Amino acid sequence: MKSVSIIGVTSYTGVELLRLLSQHPGFVVTSATARSAVGKRLDEIFPQLAAVVREESKAGVDPTLVITEEPEPTDLAFVCLPHAAAAESVVKLLERGVKVVDLSADFRLRDVNVYEEWYKHTHPAPALLETAVYGLCERYRERIQDASLVANPGCHVTTALLGLIPAFANGLVERDVIIDSKSGISGAGRSLALANHFAEANEGVDAYGLAGHRHMPEIKQELEAAAVDGGYPIANGLRITFVPHRIPMTRGLLATSYTDLKLDSTGRAPTTAEVRAIYKQYYAHEPFVHVVDQPPQTKWTYGSNHCFVHPIVDTRTNRLIVVSCLDNLVKGAAGQAIQCANRVYGFPETMGIDNVGINP
Amino acid sequence: MKSVSIIGVTSYTGVELLRLLSQHPGFVVTSATARSAVGKRLDEIFPQLAAVVREESKAGVDPTLVITEEPEPTDLAFVCLPHAAAAESVVKLLERGVKVVDLSADFRLRDVNVYEEWYKHTHPAPALLETAVYGLCERYRERIQDASLVANPGCHVTTALLGLIPAFANGLVERDVIIDSKSGISGAGRSLALANHFAEANEGVDAYGLAGHRHMPEIKQELEAAAVDGGYPIANGLRITFVPHRIPMTRGLLATSYTDLKLDSTGRAPTTAEVRAIYKQYYAHEPFVHVVDQPPQTKWTYGSNHCFVHPIVDTRTNRLIVVSCLDNLVKGAAGQAIQCANRVYGFPETMGIDNVGINP
Amino acid sequence: MKSVSIIGVTSYTGVELLRLLSQHPGFVVTSATARSAVGKRLDEIFPQLAAVVREESKAGVDPTLVITEEPEPTDLAFVCLPHAAAAESVVKLLERGVKVVDLSADFRLRDVNVYEEWYKHTHPAPALLETAVYGLCERYRERIQDASLVANPGCHVTTALLGLIPAFANGLVERDVIIDSKSGISGAGRSLALANHFAEANEGVDAYGLAGHRHMPEIKQELEAAAVDGGYPIANGLRITFVPHRIPMTRGLLATSYTDLKLDSTGRAPTTAEVRAIYKQYYAHEPFVHVVDQPPQTKWTYGSNHCFVHPIVDTRTNRLIVVSCLDNLVKGAAGQAIQCANRVYGFPETMGIDNVGINP
Amino acid sequence: MKSVSIIGVTSYTGVELLRLLSQHPGFVVTSATARSAVGKRLDEIFPQLAAVVREESKAGVDPTLVITEEPEPTDLAFVCLPHAAAAESVVKLLERGVKVVDLSADFRLRDVNVYEEWYKHTHPAPALLETAVYGLCERYRERIQDASLVANPGCHVTTALLGLIPAFANGLVERDVIIDSKSGISGAGRSLALANHFAEANEGVDAYGLAGHRHMPEIKQELEAAAVDGGYPIANGLRITFVPHRIPMTRGLLATSYTDLKLDSTGRAPTTAEVRAIYKQYYAHEPFVHVVDQPPQTKWTYGSNHCFVHPIVDTRTNRLIVVSCLDNLVKGAAGQAIQCANRVYGFPETMGIDNVGINP
Repeated sequence: MKSVSIIGVTSYTGVELLRLLSQHPGFVVTSATARSAVGKRLDEIFPQLAAVVREESKAGVDPTLVITEEPEPTDLAFVCLPHAAAAESVVKLLERGVKVVDLSADFRLRDVNVYEEWYKHTHPAPALLETAVYGLCERYRERIQDASLVANPGCHVTTALLGLIPAFANGLVERDVIIDSKSGISGAGRSLALANHFAEANEGVDAYGLAGHRHMPEIKQELEAAAVDGGYPIANGLRITFVPHRIPMTRGLLATSYTDLKLDSTGRAPTTAEVRAIYKQYYAHEPFVHVVDQPPQTKWTYGSNHCFVHPIVDTRTNRLIVVSCLDNLVKGAAGQAIQCANRVYGFPETMGIDNVGINP
Repeated sequence: MKSVSIIGVTSYTGVELLRLLSQHPGFVVTSATARSAVGKRLDEIFPQLAAVVREESKAGVDPTLVITEEPEPTDLAFVCLPHAAAAESVVKLLERGVKVVDLSADFRLRDVNVYEEWYKHTHPAPALLETAVYGLCERYRERIQDASLVANPGCHVTTALLGLIPAFANGLVERDVIIDSKSGISGAGRSLALANHFAEANEGVDAYGLAGHRHMPEIKQELEAAAVDGGYPIANGLRITFVPHRIPMTRGLLATSYTDLKLDSTGRAPTTAEVRAIYKQYYAHEPFVHVVDQPPQTKWTYGSNHCFVHPIVDTRTNRLIVVSCLDNLVKGAAGQAIQCANRVYGFPETMGIDNVGINP
Repeated sequence: MKSVSIIGVTSYTGVELLRLLSQHPGFVVTSATARSAVGKRLDEIFPQLAAVVREESKAGVDPTLVITEEPEPTDLAFVCLPHAAAAESVVKLLERGVKVVDLSADFRLRDVNVYEEWYKHTHPAPALLETAVYGLCERYRERIQDASLVANPGCHVTTALLGLIPAFANGLVERDVIIDSKSGISGAGRSLALANHFAEANEGVDAYGLAGHRHMPEIKQELEAAAVDGGYPIANGLRITFVPHRIPMTRGLLATSYTDLKLDSTGRAPTTAEVRAIYKQYYAHEPFVHVVDQPPQTKWTYGSNHCFVHPIVDTRTNRLIVVSCLDNLVKGAAGQAIQCANRVYGFPETMGIDNVGINP
Repeated sequence: MKSVSIIGVTSYTGVELLRLLSQHPGFVVTSATARSAVGKRLDEIFPQLAAVVREESKAGVDPTLVITEEPEPTDLAFVCLPHAAAAESVVKLLERGVKVVDLSADFRLRDVNVYEEWYKHTHPAPALLETAVYGLCERYRERIQDASLVANPGCHVTTALLGLIPAFANGLVERDVIIDSKSGISGAGRSLALANHFAEANEGVDAYGLAGHRHMPEIKQELEAAAVDGGYPIANGLRITFVPHRIPMTRGLLATSYTDLKLDSTGRAPTTAEVRAIYKQYYAHEPFVHVVDQPPQTKWTYGSNHCFVHPIVDTRTNRLIVVSCLDNLVKGAAGQAIQCANRVYGFPETMGIDNVGINP
């Protein structure tokens, strides 16, 4: 039984960790922090937690736990703070010997210059960038189990990567990538903002980040790395356009990715059947990634850690289209963080997060 | 490990049973029927089930199970058919020695005349009305554990009953009851109907069943029984008005109930604090019913078997108002059915259904 | 052509006035104020207004109008401020000879003591309570046309009143009234609040104001007045319980009202047909109130000034149930305000607000 | 005053025509057909129409009009039938001298072979393809005013075309086009289908038509024509991928289009400012198309005939991204049909459809 703290518990990723950990047999939450709620019990902020069923034999979450400003010592900490603040917290935790899964963007980019270009401030702890392991178990599970600091990927990036990595790792596609990503409103977080008001967001779709979104360089880094590791490095790097959209639903993220298939010497592109077979083989042993023969719906993943991937060839243009989707708060955040933490402690990777999506 | 069949698996209650049982350590689904889907695998109808994580040590659901017309022999059957068809199926199952949890209305009313008045057809198996046990564990858990046939209450009725039973069992209120009930659209089932189309139901609220709804006599029967059992029988019976409403959300059911408090000899009504203390005591040991001090939201219960109850006195009119809510497909259907089945086999009552609601 | 100002234009009632007035042939908006947006153009705050089609022959709205702190002189002002602030603004406007339609609660209650009991502050201008006319054209259209100050009713109240006034004006019912009211989220206004966030409000229903809501005394005042004016005064006054609920939709308000029918000397209650005939006669010449034979849906009224009313007798209990619904921002706010303003200037009452609801 | 019939009035485009024409001063609906509703009054099918405010001076819609199987003679007919059935109806109407605006796909493609390849049946009236005029006023308003048969474009196509035509007409871009289109559920029509059920569609996004969608060749035809007419013909034709998505909202359509900008001889691409200036000039005199400097939201267009277009250059890749949006039932169907009909009779093009969107 490992003790964990949640740093920044009043966020949507914080409360989602509470929900998932309340069912987890290997972790117990013994500390939770949030500057805005010091002295309050968890169930005062999140009244639905009053329903936690507590049994002797079970670890999990005590809804009467009192929120503090600074964390108590625990085996592991999940950090749910905004970037920059997250890095400062991570440094302190590591110094005290606490293992960390950081859900912010602070340790995801390997190149400090890229980080500083996109996040517009000096990185608080560049030395840690080398030791941090990118928290995508489907790519780095061996290294995650030895990590003291895991940089958990975000929802847009995880969806795009799981959809495109098999194509780049197997050298199927050229350097041009367009990712049109659609996210539920909870992805914008729990802070107040007019755009996230029900009356503003309902019955509306819009694009944002058109001038360049911070998640693009992270997608670029990881797709290029997958190409290199697969033996198909991309000359001159990827030429990516990434456009996120707001969708009037609470949860769910679906990315539609467009790439150009490489043609063989006769000018022939691989067929859908060929591409799909490669994808199915790539993910054959993954418990959370499922290659499907019909276009998936975000609803299939609601409340679960699963991701569905559907590659298809546009035969008129020789483009590969990949639709991939997941729950932005689970596989796109808290569930993936627990998946990494399971790996860190040698628990089965699916422990506590193996439920299927709620449907309808 | 007990084997179960789901009769009528292509309904929303059917698929919700599949979801919940896929995590249940005590039951394994070995048979599923549906006239419209004979020969198909479960995951052809419900593709999200492809994500079921299967482990050696685990019971649950095999998504490749093939749907049949008639059930295979199992220890227990969950019947998810429309009324009348359900009773016919139940008779056959009981004859074969299968225990049954029936999710239809066929065995909920004790008086066959009331049934035939409201359902407008001859009851197919009136003899079973005496042996059937009403599947509300909060009232009848002792009898459920000896039952061969459990009549599982529906969503509107469960919500109203859990909100009002403590008041009637403790003699707090008079005979006048108004129940204004608000249900998500999944309550209307999976059959096609224009009123349930997204474009018709979204951004719309309406009332239905205003001329008299079949759930009213069931609420009447159970509240009057609670009053009798508590030692406060209602002279001349209850005077109930029950009006259900359709709400543009997938899941969730909230009932607002209005009753008149009994006054003491000095003309004084009990206070909110007094009423709430009685409610809290009544439900003190219930794992799924929670008396709360702030008005609950249906969202607190999303995907869970929990029910939140909030009684409050309107001091200007001496009325008792009770707000109660739950997830119509879990505590209002499939979760409650599993709660009963747990009881039938002596499993802990919360087994496999002890998660908290998904939020946000 | 009359000039109008909108005081507090950045509210939802403010922008709804802009939308409706952009089509109105009799009014032109020449001034708009909002403390938080001084110096900005209307279409900077509400970019959809860039689409206003401007023609020579047409009055209406210029989307490039610049928002000021203080209003310019106009014939009439619509005041869209919170209570108390509204009254202060109204006093100044009236002193300058501007006619006012006030959308706040400040001048709706005739008894200053009731106002101060419920709003917990001293009324800023009690002398005006006598001259203010309650802005429900269906009751007071003659007096509205001579008014300098119209107190426009709110959405919950308008819905309840239009549903119940015919019953009280015709002496059909007793003093007990329960109003269960369901409102879309835009009713909570445009100010930031966590409860109104999409991720918090979507897939959720809850009740609020259970300890007593400010709109209750206003409903009481107007139903009692209707009873008196109809010749059926209520001995000891009404015994009202009013409970509003939040519904996950942008617009729409539906009230379900429960009352006890008076019985004749033989103990017989009127039938649905009899009650409905009385209602149809009562509203026979109303352009915006429609008595219908099937339960109406809020969606029927989307974006329109119409209200649908459906009375039905519960024959088992001799209760009269009335379902009434409207668009909270139109007939429940801005549309009704224009209806009053039309009356003030002798325009046809339906001018500029005679469209039907958007459906689906 | 011109008389019109609506053929297939029980569709969503049919009822939207009724809503819009109820406010139109130049047209009166004197005939409505629908095989499934013969003998019924309009307001029996669409009860919200009971609220139509009828005045002497006004044309429009009589909600008591009885639906027939065959149309009465009128000046013009709007045909709202599925393809193939539409063409058969159009032939008969034209023979009787009725002008037609056809909302189906039957006369949109100029090349009968392309039609038969995509629609998999023999065209019922290929001779009419030459006389039919494509109903996009922004391109063909001169020819529409002389047309007896207008082929009204659909929602996905109108959105994509209005977003991309200025780029092709001005030779800004290369032949590669990716259109990622997001549509509200009403776009799927009023026929029953499980995928359009509230409980299935809510909280879900998915892609469809991935193997090739019928609207793609229509987009190709019109963009290539715009390029030719602008003097920048596309060698070898466009290489288009078009992927539509279902979004959980009733109305609204947003297309995000990705193209490659042509570089000048120094390898420089035009800037956002340059592109936007070209777009603004292109649409300078259009009443319904608005080039905006911030990303538009579908909600801006709710219930209106307006379209917002937002072009922006991705400077890292020299791609032109264009976001365009409209209401699928208005500018994407019924509103555009009336815009064409206005043109046919020499009415102002904006007559009866000049309102702004409902917001929030």
